[in-house]
Amino acid sequence: MNKSIKVFAPASVSNVGCGFDILGFAIDGIGDEMILSKNNLNKLHIKPIEGYKNLPTEPSKNVAGVAIQALLDDLGSNQGFDIEIKKNIKPGSGIGSSSASAAGAVVAANELLGKPYSRKELVNFAMQGEIAASGDAHADNAAPTVLGGFCIVRAYDPLDVIQIESPKDLWCVVIHPQIEIKTKEARELLSTEVDLKKAIRQWGNVAGLISGLHQSDYNLIGRSLEDHIVEKQRKVLIPEFDNLKQAVLEAGALGCSISGSGPSVFALCEGEDKAKAVSSAMNEVFSKTTIPYFIYASQVSNNGVRILE
Amino acid sequence: MNKSIKVFAPASVSNVGCGFDILGFAIDGIGDEMILSKNNLNKLHIKPIEGYKNLPTEPSKNVAGVAIQALLDDLGSNQGFDIEIKKNIKPGSGIGSSSASAAGAVVAANELLGKPYSRKELVNFAMQGEIAASGDAHADNAAPTVLGGFCIVRAYDPLDVIQIESPKDLWCVVIHPQIEIKTKEARELLSTEVDLKKAIRQWGNVAGLISGLHQSDYNLIGRSLEDHIVEKQRKVLIPEFDNLKQAVLEAGALGCSISGSGPSVFALCEGEDKAKAVSSAMNEVFSKTTIPYFIYASQVSNNGVRILE
Repeated sequence: MNKSIKVFAPASVSNVGCGFDILGFAIDGIGDEMILSKNNLNKLHIKPIEGYKNLPTEPSKNVAGVAIQALLDDLGSNQGFDIEIKKNIKPGSGIGSSSASAAGAVVAANELLGKPYSRKELVNFAMQGEIAASGDAHADNAAPTVLGGFCIVRAYDPLDVIQIESPKDLWCVVIHPQIEIKTKEARELLSTEVDLKKAIRQWGNVAGLISGLHQSDYNLIGRSLEDHIVEKQRKVLIPEFDNLKQAVLEAGALGCSISGSGPSVFALCEGEDKAKAVSSAMNEVFSKTTIPYFIYASQVSNNGVRILE
Repeated sequence: MNKSIKVFAPASVSNVGCGFDILGFAIDGIGDEMILSKNNLNKLHIKPIEGYKNLPTEPSKNVAGVAIQALLDDLGSNQGFDIEIKKNIKPGSGIGSSSASAAGAVVAANELLGKPYSRKELVNFAMQGEIAASGDAHADNAAPTVLGGFCIVRAYDPLDVIQIESPKDLWCVVIHPQIEIKTKEARELLSTEVDLKKAIRQWGNVAGLISGLHQSDYNLIGRSLEDHIVEKQRKVLIPEFDNLKQAVLEAGALGCSISGSGPSVFALCEGEDKAKAVSSAMNEVFSKTTIPYFIYASQVSNNGVRILE
C-alpha cells in the first residue's frame, strides 16, 4: 500500500436551477489539489494552505480534517495523516470550495487505507466536512465532487444519492465575480413558505430536467432549467445578474442560474462552441464593471475526485 | 378512409405520490370503449351513455364532445360524428374517467380524419375536455391516456409533455371504493402555501422517481414514492386509507398513494406476484367495511388509446 497520494478534487455546481438543494454536478478544469501522506503520529496534521492563510489548519475546524476524522471514527482507526492542500477554488465562491477539500481528503484517505469504503459511502464523510463549514448538512456539492456527473440528493435520513451520467456534449460555463457571499446569509434571504402553484411548477421542471439528463435531450434540459422560487430572492446579491442571464441566453446557453448560493453564476451549453460564445458574452458584461472576475468553461465532468499519482 | 372506428381508452393514475399535478400513467385492463362514425350532418351527436344516464350528451357539455370540437376548430373542419361511449370507468373514481372519454374521442376522430395530428398534439385537445369536466386545465390524466406510459406535464404555457416508457415489470393495483369525491372539493382541502423544506423534499423525491423510471430501478421508485404535502391533507376523504396503505406496504408494494383526487388508491409493485399479494391485502382491508369497492391489477400500460377495429 502506498504511503502518499496526490488527488485532484473538482469544483461543482449545486442548486441547479429548479433543483434547489437536491441536485449538483461536477465540473472539470478547476479544482483543488491535495497530497495526503500517512504519518506515525496517530494525528492529522494540516500544512499551511497556500494562498489562503485565513483557512483554519486545526483539523477539528478544517473541512478536510473533519471529513477524514469522520471516516477514521467510523472505521475505528487512529491512522495519522499529513495533509497538504493546494487550494484553487476560492472559499465563498459558490462552486463547492469546501466540498472539494472534504471530498479530496476522504477519497485520498480511503485509497491509502486500502479502500474500505465505496465512493458512495465516502459522500457521508465528505458531508461531515460540509457541516463543519456551514453548520448545515448538505451533500449537493459533496456528492458530485466525490462521484462525478450529476447527483440527486433525494433524502438525508438516511442519505440517498442517485448519480446520473452527464450527457456527452454538456458544457458548463461559470463566472466567479470576486465578491464573497456567505451561504448562511444567502439562506436567510429565502422565505420559509412557498406558493403551492410555484412549488408544483418547480417539481415539474425538476422532473423535466432529470428526464432530459437521462435522455441526453439538450432542449428539454434547457426548457427545464427554470427556477421560480429561489433565484429571484437571491439574485439581488449578485451584481449584473439579469444582464448576465440575458446575455448568455442570447448567446445560446440552454439555461443559466446561480451556482450554489452565489456569487458564481453558471450556464449550461450544448457543445464547446456554444460554451465559448457564452464565455465571451459573460466577459462582455463583466468587463464593463470594476469587479474582478474569473470565467471557467469545461465539460460537465463524469469523474469525481481523480487520483493524480 | 374508414367511416367508423372503435377504440379502447385506458384508465390512468395521476398525482403519483410526490408527482402531484405533474405526473400520471396509463393502466391496462380497465377503460372506456368508444365507437365514432362520421355523419353527414356537420354536427356531433352523442348517443345516450350506457349505464351513466346522468352524463350530459349535449356535445358542448360532454368531455368527448368538447375535445372533438376543439380538434375540429383547430383543423377548420365541420365534419360531423356520431359518438357512442361504453363507459367502464365510473365518473368521480379518481382514475381518469373524463380523460378516457376525451382521449378516446380525439384519437378516434383523428384517425377518421386521416391523422392530421400527432398523438402528442392530441393531448391539447383532450385537455379541453378536462376543462369542461372540472373547470381546470389538467393534462396529467389526459397525456398518459393518449400516449401511454408515464407522462410528465412540465408546463402549460405552452403545454410540454414528456413521455417515459414504463419499466417492464411495473404493475399497478387500484382500489376504487364506490364513494364519490369531487376534484373541486379535494382541491379546496389543500393549503395554498407549502413549507419550503417540505417542497424541497418533494422535488428531491420527484427527481428520484423520474430517475428510477428511466433506469427501471424498482427500489428507487419505491423509495421516491413519498408525498409529504398533499396526501395527508386529502386522506381524510378516503375511508381506511391508513390501514390500506400499511397493509399494501406490508404485502410488498413499492409505494402507495391517492389516485387523482381519490377516492381510488393505487399501489405500484414489481411483478405480477407482488401485485396479486397487494390485491389480496386491499381486499382483506375493505371486505371488513360496508363500502362496495372494485380492485384492478394490471401492468402499467405503455399503450395509450388503442384502436380495436
